[in-house]
Amino acid sequence: MTTPGPALDRFWAVVPAGGAGTRLWPLSRSSAPKFLRDLTGSGRSLLQETHARLAPLVEDRFLVVTGRAHRDAVVEQLPGLPDGAVVAEPSARDSMAAVGLAAALLERRDPDAVLGSFAADHVIGEPEAFATAVRVAVRAAEDGWLVTLGIEPTSASTAFGYIHLGEPLAGHPGAAHVAAFVEKPSADVAERYLATGEFRWNAGMFVVRPTVLLDLLAAGDPGFAAALRAIAADPDTLDDVWPMLPRIALDHAVAEPAAAAGRVAVVPAALGWDDVGDFDSLTGLLGDPDRARLSVLGDDALVVGRDATGLVVPASGRVVAVVGLDDVVVVDTPDALLVTTRERAQDVKAVVATLRDLGRDDLL
Amino acid sequence: MTTPGPALDRFWAVVPAGGAGTRLWPLSRSSAPKFLRDLTGSGRSLLQETHARLAPLVEDRFLVVTGRAHRDAVVEQLPGLPDGAVVAEPSARDSMAAVGLAAALLERRDPDAVLGSFAADHVIGEPEAFATAVRVAVRAAEDGWLVTLGIEPTSASTAFGYIHLGEPLAGHPGAAHVAAFVEKPSADVAERYLATGEFRWNAGMFVVRPTVLLDLLAAGDPGFAAALRAIAADPDTLDDVWPMLPRIALDHAVAEPAAAAGRVAVVPAALGWDDVGDFDSLTGLLGDPDRARLSVLGDDALVVGRDATGLVVPASGRVVAVVGLDDVVVVDTPDALLVTTRERAQDVKAVVATLRDLGRDDLL
Repeated sequence: MTTPGPALDRFWAVVPAGGAGTRLWPLSRSSAPKFLRDLTGSGRSLLQETHARLAPLVEDRFLVVTGRAHRDAVVEQLPGLPDGAVVAEPSARDSMAAVGLAAALLERRDPDAVLGSFAADHVIGEPEAFATAVRVAVRAAEDGWLVTLGIEPTSASTAFGYIHLGEPLAGHPGAAHVAAFVEKPSADVAERYLATGEFRWNAGMFVVRPTVLLDLLAAGDPGFAAALRAIAADPDTLDDVWPMLPRIALDHAVAEPAAAAGRVAVVPAALGWDDVGDFDSLTGLLGDPDRARLSVLGDDALVVGRDATGLVVPASGRVVAVVGLDDVVVVDTPDALLVTTRERAQDVKAVVATLRDLGRDDLL
Repeated sequence: MTTPGPALDRFWAVVPAGGAGTRLWPLSRSSAPKFLRDLTGSGRSLLQETHARLAPLVEDRFLVVTGRAHRDAVVEQLPGLPDGAVVAEPSARDSMAAVGLAAALLERRDPDAVLGSFAADHVIGEPEAFATAVRVAVRAAEDGWLVTLGIEPTSASTAFGYIHLGEPLAGHPGAAHVAAFVEKPSADVAERYLATGEFRWNAGMFVVRPTVLLDLLAAGDPGFAAALRAIAADPDTLDDVWPMLPRIALDHAVAEPAAAAGRVAVVPAALGWDDVGDFDSLTGLLGDPDRARLSVLGDDALVVGRDATGLVVPASGRVVAVVGLDDVVVVDTPDALLVTTRERAQDVKAVVATLRDLGRDDLL
């Protein structure tokens, strides 16, 4: 990787570090969710990878928003963060509350700041392209736009929402207006999107001035914005106010209505982005391009494969032998074992639900 | 089970307890092979089941022939056996040496004895039919015949040798001459065998007077028979003589040539017999007839299945979740995990070979 250029003054990274990652059970647990795990075999957790990707752009201007249960783990994984860089939510309230609180804190701290919100548990295979896109986005955000990064689709995925590109954004080469955010499409619709070349995946990455974000929120839900600003003004009110905040994604609370009002820009980019949403996605991320053998997340020496493709995670130290299965997923941990297929990767969350019904909270 | 009738005077059970059972790895290990394991969920090992099935017929007249490494385990599993009932082989030399040594020991002890040789690691679902067939076989053996039990085929299996039935055996209702033993057939030939109704599976069960067996052996290999008799006469010679004995199955050494000479009889019977040769066989043995769900060997409460059929062996105490796989085989032990399919069950022995090549003798 070459250097991504100098850091951007007054640009802050806001990193929501939440989400149970139940579709990655038993690798992801409520006590050790996805963002705290090394899911790429890099030796660093997804959170640490996210930090490393952003640090050249923001130096130490980080706000990591996480659950109280994970606060200590985050601090331990990112020991270089300054005091106050980890904001602990009393409970999970979705991305609008998490990013909105960070925005309210930054608004008081530096009214001219620009924040970029990037999830702690995504993978970006092209960090240089990412840095380049963020620079374009920050300039547009400085001009008052809510800016999102639009991921160049590599398949007609039905797992993501899409961004419909509009006209080029004047004065900001590489950016465009957002015509609309569209929901996860059917397979047919996704194919059409891909064919037009006018659609990008919505990866939930936003770059914006804190005041712009909160004012856009206030346009639809003034009480929500006021509550976030009240917490920032007096952090002692956090525990009282937080439980009353709406559970809503930033996309729905702000981005979609703002796009309809012509206030959103997009920087399209090919980032090698992956949300590592399930074991199918993880297998694709780790796999050899030919899909001719088993991919291993962990110690290769523990896996004996024979006429088998897919993914093995040998995370218990035991030998795992797989014979005669294609696109299989075997996740071996010290207290629980999952065997499924890439095709059925989405159904892993149903296993977690079953275990909860069975009272096996120790395994969740 | 009703009582199988009184014990048969002078009838001895010879139980060869050997075989690595590598196709049942990682459940079966060199340190704890198949016959020492509970493979039916009965709470008893296959060896204990075999003993329980035979005890009503022989009382305490048992000779269990096993490897030295397993002698203590056999004694521990069958604490009621009299002294001398467990014969320890210095090394594995196949069934002719194992059963032949037992025959030589019995020949000296009771020249009028009849022995029945029954492997320690097979399953018999119809113990009453078994007892009935053995009674017929013992009477024929008393008249000097080498008698085998011929299993009524339940499928055109290519995994077993077959017995071609000849004319009825005069004076022994329920028994017949053996026209020939035939090798494991191709699928086409097996179908033809099944259609004629004249063929039975060869399960390697033999009932015979010790002297008859040894004299039949001597007809083809006088040195082998003499060596076995020499060991019986002076057990101190065991370690010196044993390593020089041929590695050959009783079928080849005695039964096939004796059949060609018109000296072998068969008692056809439907016994619910299964050699539990691999995980496909084991799944069939444990499975629900509809094959609509996962069969579990062990604690059902540890298995969460969802759109899955096949076999799970949760032998490590961990929870095993299986989603969206048919006819899968998952065997979970404390130090090794196997994931395969019923169809590929035969290939498990290749995994064992690979582990041996890798120097992982600790797992074999």
